[in-house]
Order: sequence, then C-alpha cells, then structure tokens
Amino acid sequence: MELDALRRRLDAAGQSHLLRFWDELGGAERRALAEELWGLDCEELGGCFRRAMAGGGGGAKVDGRMEALPRAVLGSATRDADRLSEWEREGLHQISQSKVAVLLLAGGQGTRLGVPYPKGMYDVGLPSHKTLFQLQAERILKLQQLAGKQHGTTCVIPWYIMTSGRTMDSTKEFFSKHNYFGLKPDNVIFFQQGMLPAMGFDGKILLEEKGKVSMAPDGNGGLYRALGTYGIVADMERRGVGSIHMYCVDNILVKVADPRFIGFCIQRGAECGAKVVEKTNPLEPVGVVCRVDGVYQVVEYSEISLATAQKRSPDGRLLFNAGNIANHYLTLPFLRDVVDIYEPQLKHHVAQKKISYVDVTSGHLVKPDKPNGIKMEKFVFDIFQFARQFAVYEVLREDEFSPLKNADSQNGKDNPTTARHALMSLHHCWVLNAGGHFVDENGTRLPAIPRLKDAHDLPIQCEISPLISYGGEGLEKYVANKEFHAPLIIDEDGVHEHVKNSVQTPWQEASGPGVACDDSCQTVNQKNENGSCKC
Amino acid sequence: MELDALRRRLDAAGQSHLLRFWDELGGAERRALAEELWGLDCEELGGCFRRAMAGGGGGAKVDGRMEALPRAVLGSATRDADRLSEWEREGLHQISQSKVAVLLLAGGQGTRLGVPYPKGMYDVGLPSHKTLFQLQAERILKLQQLAGKQHGTTCVIPWYIMTSGRTMDSTKEFFSKHNYFGLKPDNVIFFQQGMLPAMGFDGKILLEEKGKVSMAPDGNGGLYRALGTYGIVADMERRGVGSIHMYCVDNILVKVADPRFIGFCIQRGAECGAKVVEKTNPLEPVGVVCRVDGVYQVVEYSEISLATAQKRSPDGRLLFNAGNIANHYLTLPFLRDVVDIYEPQLKHHVAQKKISYVDVTSGHLVKPDKPNGIKMEKFVFDIFQFARQFAVYEVLREDEFSPLKNADSQNGKDNPTTARHALMSLHHCWVLNAGGHFVDENGTRLPAIPRLKDAHDLPIQCEISPLISYGGEGLEKYVANKEFHAPLIIDEDGVHEHVKNSVQTPWQEASGPGVACDDSCQTVNQKNENGSCKC
Repeated sequence: MELDALRRRLDAAGQSHLLRFWDELGGAERRALAEELWGLDCEELGGCFRRAMAGGGGGAKVDGRMEALPRAVLGSATRDADRLSEWEREGLHQISQSKVAVLLLAGGQGTRLGVPYPKGMYDVGLPSHKTLFQLQAERILKLQQLAGKQHGTTCVIPWYIMTSGRTMDSTKEFFSKHNYFGLKPDNVIFFQQGMLPAMGFDGKILLEEKGKVSMAPDGNGGLYRALGTYGIVADMERRGVGSIHMYCVDNILVKVADPRFIGFCIQRGAECGAKVVEKTNPLEPVGVVCRVDGVYQVVEYSEISLATAQKRSPDGRLLFNAGNIANHYLTLPFLRDVVDIYEPQLKHHVAQKKISYVDVTSGHLVKPDKPNGIKMEKFVFDIFQFARQFAVYEVLREDEFSPLKNADSQNGKDNPTTARHALMSLHHCWVLNAGGHFVDENGTRLPAIPRLKDAHDLPIQCEISPLISYGGEGLEKYVANKEFHAPLIIDEDGVHEHVKNSVQTPWQEASGPGVACDDSCQTVNQKNENGSCKC
Repeated sequence: MELDALRRRLDAAGQSHLLRFWDELGGAERRALAEELWGLDCEELGGCFRRAMAGGGGGAKVDGRMEALPRAVLGSATRDADRLSEWEREGLHQISQSKVAVLLLAGGQGTRLGVPYPKGMYDVGLPSHKTLFQLQAERILKLQQLAGKQHGTTCVIPWYIMTSGRTMDSTKEFFSKHNYFGLKPDNVIFFQQGMLPAMGFDGKILLEEKGKVSMAPDGNGGLYRALGTYGIVADMERRGVGSIHMYCVDNILVKVADPRFIGFCIQRGAECGAKVVEKTNPLEPVGVVCRVDGVYQVVEYSEISLATAQKRSPDGRLLFNAGNIANHYLTLPFLRDVVDIYEPQLKHHVAQKKISYVDVTSGHLVKPDKPNGIKMEKFVFDIFQFARQFAVYEVLREDEFSPLKNADSQNGKDNPTTARHALMSLHHCWVLNAGGHFVDENGTRLPAIPRLKDAHDLPIQCEISPLISYGGEGLEKYVANKEFHAPLIIDEDGVHEHVKNSVQTPWQEASGPGVACDDSCQTVNQKNENGSCKC
C-alpha cells in the first residue's frame, strides 16, 4: 500500500522509473530506497530543474552587465591602513560582548587532496603538525582571550560547523577525540548540508545503483537551507549573536572572526560583506565581487570574457580585481531574512557533469564519456544581491589566503607545501616585525627576503602558535632583539629553537604529514607531555 | 728565464704560491699554467680585491637610503596605455633606420637547469620545439620586416651575443647548424665575457688544480669590459646604431628590441632605461630599481629589510615595486662612455662562496663546507648611476617575463613547464583578442580563463610563430570569428589544428623536450621539410 502511494507520487512527478528495478531488490534495499524516495520533494525538484535550465545559458551574458565596485563600499588593508586599529577595536568590542559567531563551511571531502577524510583533519606538515581544524580552533580561543582581557569580560565565539552527510561522523569524532582543542563542546555546533539528486538533461532523476538514487551535495549555498533545518539561526538569536563571520575550511591563513573585518562591516552599516584579495593577473581563475544590474554579486571566472577580465582602471589595476576568497560577513537579522525569505527564491546553478548511472532499459551501469546530466547547486554568495548595504574589505593575499585544494605535484598550486610555506613565511615576517632576527650556522644574520625560487630554496621555518599570537601581536616579549636559529617554534610551552650539530644544513624542511623529525634537536623549555620532540 | 720573470711578477703581487707545484707538472701543464698566469693582471686584481673588500659589508646600510622612483621617470604599460602606440611608432621608426641594436647576455651555462649546454639552446617543450635562441632570432626577423614594411626600408637589427669561455664554441656551432635561424651571419656578432680568479679571504688566488687557477666569470657586468676588448662599440658606431636593447637569454617572453620600450626611452630623452614588472609581494626575491643617494640603482632583495620591503605608497602599491627583469636600454654615446670611462670605476661585488681549492701546503684538494673565499663580479645595472637621464618602463609580467632558471620539480618556479605555459597562455590571449575562439570536443566554446590550479589543469595549447606575430598584431586574418580545437599552431606554413579521435581528452599537454607526439594528428597545410608531425 505504501508502495502504491510512492508509485503514484513518482508517477505524478514523471519519476516513476526510479522504481523500475524494485522487483530485483532485497528487503533491506527496498526499505532504503523507499526511505530515500519519500525524502525527495519531487514537485519542488521539478520546479528547481525547470528554473535552473531556463536560467542557464540563455539571457544576456553577465559579462556585458558587470560594473566595478564603487570606491565607497571598499575598505582596504593597504589603502586604509590608518583605519585598521579603529576597525579592530570595534570588532574586539563586539567579540567581548559575545556578539560574534563563526560559521564554517566544511562539507567537502578531501577528494582532490587525495585523502579519505575531511580537509579540516589534514596536517600539512607544519613543525607542530597541527591540523586545519586545530589552527582555527586555537585562533578562536586566542580571540576570546584577547577580547575578554581588553574589556574585562568572559566571552564566547560560538563556532557553527557545517559538514556533509559523508563527513559528519568523522568530523565530530575528531573534535571529540581532541577535546575540542580546548573549546567548550557547547560552543561548537555541528550541522549538516543537504543533498540533491542528480538529473539527466530531461529532468529524470538518475539512479546510482538499482536501489539507490544518485545524490550530490547541494552546493555551499545549501548552507542557508541547512541553517533553517537545524535551527541554527534560532540558536544564534538565543545566544545574542549580532555578527557572523563565514569562511571555508581550506584556507590555512584564515583569520577566523577577524575583528578588523567585522569592525569594518559594522562601521559601514553593512548587512553583508565580502573579504577579497586583489586579482592582479587577468587570467587568474578566481571569481570577482562586482555589481551586475546594480546589485552585488560574485561573477565566476568562467563567465568572464578575456576583454572584460583585462579591463583596467586609470590607476592601472584590473577593473574587476576583487577576488572572492569565500570569507563573508552577515548580520544576524540579514541571515534570518536570507533563511526565511531569500533562500527559497535563489535559482540553482547548473553544472553539467559526467554522471555514472544505471540505464533504466538495460539495467546496466553506464559510465558516460561526455556530460550526460546536471547537478544543481546554490552558492553562498548568491545572497549578496539581497543586502541593502554591502561592504567589501580588501586584504593582502600573503597575510590571509592560502587554500589547500590539491595534493602535492609538479608545479602544483594550492597544495600542502604551498599552504605550509605560506604560514611559515607569514610567521617569519611576524618575528622580524617584532624585532627578532634569524641567523645562520655562523651567526650571520639571514636576509629578510629568503631566496625561494625553487622547491629546494625553502622559507625560513617558523611557526607561532595561535595561542601565542592571533595576527602577529604580542611577540615582542619573546623575540625583540634576539637572534634565532630556524626552525623556531613559539607556543604555550615557550620558545623552541632547533640547534644543529652539522654546519652543512643550516635548517631542514619540515617533514611531511605524520613523518617524525629525525634531527638531533635541542629545544629550549621542552615540555611535551609525551616527552617527544615537537619539531 | 721566462719562468724567473713570472716568478718575480707573482712575488711582487704576493701570489707566488701559484707556482708551488711547478716541479710536479708535466710539460703541457706547465705551458698552460704559465699562459694562464701571464694573462692575469695581478696588480689590478689586488686593487680590485682591496676595493671590493672595503666596500662590502661596511658603510651605512643601503636600506635606509632608498628613495622611491619619482612618477616622472616612470612609463607604464597599464597606466599610460594611451601613449603606447606613439612609443611604438617611434621605436619602429628607429628600427626601420637600422638604428637599434640588441645585446644578449648568454654567458650562463644551464647548470641549475640541469643541462650541459647554454640555456639559449634549450627546448622547453613547445609544440614547435623551438629553442630560446630561435624564438629570439625570429622576433628580430619579424621586427625587421614590420619596421621595414612600415617605412619602406630594408633594415637590420644587429644582434650582439655575449657568451662565456665555456659556451662560445657550442653557441656558435648551434647558430651555424641552424643557418642563424634566417638572420644574416654578418649581423650576429659573438663575443666573450671575461673571467676573474677566485681568491681566499686573504687575497691569495686559489688553485683549482695544481696546474690550474680557479677562474669564474666576472659577472654580467663584465659585459662592458668585453665590449671594449672585442671592439663591439666601434662596430655599433660603424653601423650607425643609436639605441641598444640589452636582455638576458632566459626569459621566454622577452620582447627583443621592443619598439615601445625604445620609443619610450627616446621620447624621455633617457641615456639609460630599465624595463620592470610590478613587485606585489614584499617577500618576492627580486631586485628593485630605485634611487639611493639620489642616483638610480638596483637594490637586491637580500639587501632590503622587511620593514622597507613592506613600505607602501598611499595608493596601496609597494613603495619599492619596480622589479628588475634585466631588460635595459642604453644610447650608444652613453655605452661608449660606460666602456671608456665609467666601467673601470665600478667596484666589484663580492660573493662569498665555498670554493674547492688545492691546499698549497699539503697539495690536497679541499672541499670546504663553509665559505672560504670570494668571487668578484660586476653587474650590468651598476652603470645606472652614471646616466644623466634615466627612465623606467613598467610592463605586465604575464606579457613579458617568464624566466627559465631551474629544472622541473615539485612546486617549482621558473622552470621549463612554467615557461612553456606562460608562452602558450599569452598566445591564447592573442587569439581571443583577435576574435578567435576555442571549442571543446562537442563544439562548445571554452571559457577565456581556463582552470589552471594544478599541473593537471593545463592551459589551452596555442603557439604563434614570431614570424607571424611579434606581439599579438596581425592575427585577425587568421583567427577572427573562427573556432579552433587546441592545440592550435600558427606559423609560416599556415594554421594547424589538432583534431582528436578520442573525445575523452580534449587536448593534451605538449610533450617534453625532444619527446615526439604520439597522438593521431590531422594538421591543416602540413608542410614540414622532414615530413614529421609538427605538433
């Protein structure tokens, strides 16, 4: 009887082929499929499909309708350097009142990275072997301390973490196993991104197996629906949150809950804001924040013609140079409206894909060699258009952006090595700017700009724990007027220097993920619980 | 008797240890050593050594004396885009009158690149498998045609090529074997960089073997002395040359005899000029053109403190952002003065090196593990300070600069792959800007900005012969409103497209140096002399 009801429902939506193999399935398979199919809102899906297909491809190209950002919406870490401390003060004040929350997009699996677990659990091979999750957790801890101390409060930055169905369990386990890296479990809230079925170009839902629908995550913009489903907005309201910083897990330099960004957006009265880095090469594959038909939007690089990408302002910069790094600001009232009102209006983006499927006539699994269907996605930045007041904050790439996307490879980009080097290079700068120096095995001071043209020319190894410094502040007492031999590590246990016996190799590359240090090592103030060397 | 004279001469200069092993040498070795030692001007060397050692290290750090370039000396390909055609006209006019010569620094061996021959002979694995020398020769040929045609003249751009002792023979042979790539042999003039002996910190010349002095090239600034030695300036005067473009062999994108650069320098009345690219990251290891104590100079990255490197102008750019790419302009009268008057005044730069040497006491070969001596070098840009009028021309990195320095390696920079990709990416842009399009195997147009985050995401393969276009001009008749399947090659034999049978791999990476194409290939207008496929 239930089967009949299901069949009628699928019939009505033109999806009855999904039960084509029902008779071949065993009991458990039938139950799983029936549950899956009852979970699909076929009518809504059909509507999404029609709207998505109508929107894609047709219409005037976005390219011709793009307008540059007005200078008035832009704040810049370089051009407005004199405002930074004011913005930072404002942001820290908000944090001290527990009015800032953090929203992490961590639904992706490490497929391109070549690991079977969520990216946040990846160890890029820093001297400390901290994972991305740990670095981010410790930045939150440190900010809570900084803001609390400055304002005499005890404050909390709640951390909302969106996983996907595939990564939820392993992510939760990882946090639990590591005692939430010192955060209170109550303030780390996990929720789960939705999934949507893949469809053929004819709108028919595809079967991955005879008893299983082909499902894919609904894009990072699925965030907004998930926020509603899991009552996250209500939780934020209950906690008195006013501002939200949203970001992607893969950026090793991410300034979680960045007080300057938050303070800037608040001072501008923005409902929504984007942090960007300057795009300097027209061919760089990065989306740009701009206006289209008068509203703010991220235009993806694949939608831009070369002529548009090459356009320049009179000052020589690219006209469309606000490179999106998936670092956004929202006020809670705006987020509430997004979840309740705007999200359902968003059209899905259509990605044509090669999708393996079970042919409903032959029953064979087909692996197509050209795109045969679509996946439908929403993007987090699609809601920019609804903001009554929007702000854009430009920061330096070397300070804030180094994403981990790929495995190490020849001439590769955005991989564990580039991420590790970006962090160590930044921390090296912090030490120099706080008055420290690095010396070689002869005691000669090393130049500030190390030679780094090749994989064999390594950056000076230097890692500062986020528990010691959030953004380079407060290091003078550790390093001013001192000379260090790299690797240098500063963490809550003190200052650790690597002193070598050999004079031939003044320092050595941090070992890869999980590989232990095999150098003779004399660290200062060595207090690791398990007694092993931290370098 | 001759030996006595030599001994007296060495004694007087404190270098008598060079004959320490004379008695152990055979006849041929003795003759070779004697010739080498007679060739050394020990007295001059001693003076150089004392001046070099006195200049190095001591004195006020250059860092604190740096001043930014005044805007008035700067021309910019982006900020002065409206002047480019005027500069180009001026440059082409000069070329058409045979008043422009080219000076190539090609003394380096391919050591870091991992090959035993000069870099100019390297094939980075382009579809055409052209070497750096061939690309540069063809650019000269094309410019001669362009300028001649525009002004109704037959003109010559003489090409002066500085090799070193080690690369002279193989370079000459290579040009001869390839019929000078279509240039007249009379207009390709080879000459040779000088060598200087390596010295210990005590000023004693080092022996590489018992019968052989340790010699090293005298730096690219050795150019000016060599120009005198080989009568190059006189040859230029005889030919009526007025302007000289000097560059390094390793830049695959180099615009040899760039008419815009030459026209710009002439219109500014500059005796000397430098072409630069914008340095955007404070830590980038590149020298910057600036003023020090009021005169123009390149300050190397190793001499700059982080605080100075991080300084910014109010417009947000780095204050010292004129990245030196070893592309210079000189007038012939200025070059004459440099050779006759200024070069002898230049101090040598001292590079502390680990230099293997024969110990004069024990007679054993010693391989030191820390620096034990110096090599003395002059740099081409050391003569900027003498120019009464100086000009700086800023161009886009992606258009003009991609040096070949290293072998391919993980996360490597400046290697064959990056050079090949830079050239193909630029030529891809040329095709799009001339109204052409690329399509995939289904006939769908490819986005202008290809995904290129990883070694596996390749640029669209596209190579335009310099004989067809010097800088992107004149391609409309080949590509406007046409659709191409990559790889696309346009050369003097026509337009070649790669059409694949397989639909799974729409295009494939150009093979490495020397590796033949193994794909089924249908080229249009295929006319290779040897009948083999050009792709």
